[in-house]
Amino acid sequence: MAQIRILNENIVRELLTLPMALQAVEQAYLQKASGQGEIWPMVFHEFDPGHVDLDIKSGHLSQTETYGLKVVSFHDGNPSKGLPILQGTSLIFDLETGVPKALLNAGAITDYRTGAAGAIGAKYLARKDSKTLLMAGCGALAPYLIAATLLVLPGLNHVLLVNPRRPGGSAERLDGIVTEVDSLLKESGAVRQAEIIPVTGLEQAVRESDVILTATPARQPYIQTEWVRPGAHLSCVGADMSGKQEIDQNIMGRARVFGDDEVQCLSVGECEAAHKKGILQKLDGELGAVINGTVPGRTNNKEITVFDSTGISLQDLATAGEVLSQAEKLKKGILVEL
Amino acid sequence: MAQIRILNENIVRELLTLPMALQAVEQAYLQKASGQGEIWPMVFHEFDPGHVDLDIKSGHLSQTETYGLKVVSFHDGNPSKGLPILQGTSLIFDLETGVPKALLNAGAITDYRTGAAGAIGAKYLARKDSKTLLMAGCGALAPYLIAATLLVLPGLNHVLLVNPRRPGGSAERLDGIVTEVDSLLKESGAVRQAEIIPVTGLEQAVRESDVILTATPARQPYIQTEWVRPGAHLSCVGADMSGKQEIDQNIMGRARVFGDDEVQCLSVGECEAAHKKGILQKLDGELGAVINGTVPGRTNNKEITVFDSTGISLQDLATAGEVLSQAEKLKKGILVEL
Repeated sequence: MAQIRILNENIVRELLTLPMALQAVEQAYLQKASGQGEIWPMVFHEFDPGHVDLDIKSGHLSQTETYGLKVVSFHDGNPSKGLPILQGTSLIFDLETGVPKALLNAGAITDYRTGAAGAIGAKYLARKDSKTLLMAGCGALAPYLIAATLLVLPGLNHVLLVNPRRPGGSAERLDGIVTEVDSLLKESGAVRQAEIIPVTGLEQAVRESDVILTATPARQPYIQTEWVRPGAHLSCVGADMSGKQEIDQNIMGRARVFGDDEVQCLSVGECEAAHKKGILQKLDGELGAVINGTVPGRTNNKEITVFDSTGISLQDLATAGEVLSQAEKLKKGILVEL
Repeated sequence: MAQIRILNENIVRELLTLPMALQAVEQAYLQKASGQGEIWPMVFHEFDPGHVDLDIKSGHLSQTETYGLKVVSFHDGNPSKGLPILQGTSLIFDLETGVPKALLNAGAITDYRTGAAGAIGAKYLARKDSKTLLMAGCGALAPYLIAATLLVLPGLNHVLLVNPRRPGGSAERLDGIVTEVDSLLKESGAVRQAEIIPVTGLEQAVRESDVILTATPARQPYIQTEWVRPGAHLSCVGADMSGKQEIDQNIMGRARVFGDDEVQCLSVGECEAAHKKGILQKLDGELGAVINGTVPGRTNNKEITVFDSTGISLQDLATAGEVLSQAEKLKKGILVEL
């Protein structure tokens, strides 16, 4: 019997940092671009649409010599039972032998790798002289997205925070988000330079922003095409299943559009609506091809760029791989005969 | 953080018996027939066709109030490294909340539930007065199939054992298989009445048999249509991916044909060849519908019946559910914070 390492939520949070996640996710995109990593068909099941669903994302990654899967479930009745609304569990196997290597609580992995994904989109596509970041969405992912983007674009000096569904309430989560951002930066050895400011006027905030991160479960676009200034970059991470949409589809017709996985972006991502309406035939490229230099990303300071981050298994595998290698080195977690 | 129960191979083998697996698999088929259980799309990936592959089967089952998945991998180079050629790992979640409940070594679960599946096909489709059983295939599954079928058809008095690829070598595994069958029957509170006899003549053995179980990785049929006697039943468990086939496809044109899941049977099961060649348009029914009485199974003593067992996630979930409930009762396994 092989021994499997069990890493619970506390241990994963103790070991994982944003620089680790940023490096892992960037490597995941690169490996996908070079054929060293592959995503397998996603299993998606809705028990009760909008209330209870789950997906199983799987794939393999040569870099970490693993294959594996992550189950993420959404149960909107859980908070009333004192349970998390979103739960993630990862199972990792050795690529060479198929031996199960690790079981991880993937809640933190999802937070970090999703924050890193939005930031890497900005790192490769936003203008280097970007000053103002708009965070649209005040949920659990907001601190990860803000902190990761501040790390990759240190010239940002303002972060506008808006709750698109209820802009009047944007200030409510300010203290919590600032605390979390500062803690994430601190564990990365960084100190926040940018001011975080809650705003009530969504349109005005979009008009002022160089980088826009969207992370809401919206099913109706809340960012209009004419609001987006020339040269802006948008990293859209909210849309990860059919029917979700955060930005007006006409933006896609005017922007250079990239994604993590073309098939997923066009079918279940932020690009779905534009694709279905014939505004966007295909992506300008996957981000991995921009990172490895085979596809040009931004070509001038006037164009709008979009990164559609639907979430792929390779991000999870790469991030889990970093955590696992730290855990092995530091002898963290519990080893159990399986 | 929730606690997850880890059940390793030894514990699963200690807790699981064939009567438990027979009941679980029968319930799984029934739940599928009544819409209380559902299988989700299978993920199948070949790293190196014929040498290294894996599948992920998932689904949910109301009976055990769980959903979950099983990863089964095949690495033909593993034995030279002292590792098993087939490995299985199951992850089980609470249906109501999505909380991960258990991680199980699924090697034993696969053995027991596959043996039970072939037997349940025979239980509902073979003639009650069947006397002679043919086990085609001398691999790891043979003892489970033989023992489970002897439990459900106690009138069987002869078991013919044949290695279809090398009939001259059928006797080589006799002692090992007899020992395992007797041990499986003993843990079920039963004693073997039937004699187990290795045979070298495949055709003659098929001609004499009332019940035929096939469990080989064959890609060419080795049982010919004209050999199968009127009134015989065949449970075919070897074909579980495209290209595998054990019995001549023309048998399907003459038999009443049932399966565990119609879509899987026609696309990747024993029915694939007959379906592709236009011999079989559809199944006569899924076995769950025979068990619950909505579809007639065998209608007379002359017809040939076939059960195509491709393997469905609900068998694994139901069997794991039985094991888990025993483990909870007896406080077996290790509870770990996740």
